[in-house]
Amino acid sequence: MGDRVASVSAVAIRHAKPSDYGRVIGLVNVWWGGREMAPMLPKLFFIHFEGTSFVAETADGDLVGFVCGFLSQTADDEAYIHFVGIDPEARGSGLGRALYERFFEEVRADGRSVVRCVTSPANERSVAFHESLGFEVERVVPDYDGPGEDRVLLVKRLS
Amino acid sequence: MGDRVASVSAVAIRHAKPSDYGRVIGLVNVWWGGREMAPMLPKLFFIHFEGTSFVAETADGDLVGFVCGFLSQTADDEAYIHFVGIDPEARGSGLGRALYERFFEEVRADGRSVVRCVTSPANERSVAFHESLGFEVERVVPDYDGPGEDRVLLVKRLS
Repeated sequence: MGDRVASVSAVAIRHAKPSDYGRVIGLVNVWWGGREMAPMLPKLFFIHFEGTSFVAETADGDLVGFVCGFLSQTADDEAYIHFVGIDPEARGSGLGRALYERFFEEVRADGRSVVRCVTSPANERSVAFHESLGFEVERVVPDYDGPGEDRVLLVKRLS
Repeated sequence: MGDRVASVSAVAIRHAKPSDYGRVIGLVNVWWGGREMAPMLPKLFFIHFEGTSFVAETADGDLVGFVCGFLSQTADDEAYIHFVGIDPEARGSGLGRALYERFFEEVRADGRSVVRCVTSPANERSVAFHESLGFEVERVVPDYDGPGEDRVLLVKRLS
């Protein structure tokens, strides 16, 4: 953890805006080590789901994390988290937890009692992080998101 | 156009189901000439937006097209089309139009009066197709969906 994000208390979380997208996608590619992540995170999430998407900024205005989610259109008691990104220098600061909790609060207010998301089975750190937030592993599904794209299905009941 | 899809009248359009996803994503990669399209079209669209996503099948049960869209959560008069795929052998049959019209009908019933989507400026055929369906070009935005990902923003008012 770098000095720049000494603690989550120095970070402000607010709703994402469409104008945040360019900055977010530029950083996401860096945070993922140069992988081209834009296809997974088109701008539409910042336009049509801004009410359930959040960004985290330092007092200096540096973007250090975000979460993009939405209310399920099919299941009216469910919400879904599609994408979460945390500045590698901010990992371990509690920022991921704070972003998820902000999301939980928002969707609970919208009458949702279940939150779902998926992650890669190879990403044990992600599975452990979700379990620490109260998610349970429902199952692991081979080829869930296309050929070779196995996924762990995670679910959390909001209390 | 192949013999298999002689006309759109031989094709049935129905709501997409989560169980359609594996078949769709396998075909999409083929239809796009081997490009890996799964990152742009995760399974979540077939789970959480099935009410505004449709597949088209021949009488033999072959999948020949689909459309994935959703109701905007931010703008309660808008709907958005995220992804459309048509079997190359079915192009020119009117199937794309039929899928869009099914989507318009659905979202109009949900109280939406505006439909938006984006396409690549390089894809002149796509822009022309959308214009033939009553979409207007709002503007072309450089780097809209990330670095180098320029997009034409299209909008249609439902009457």
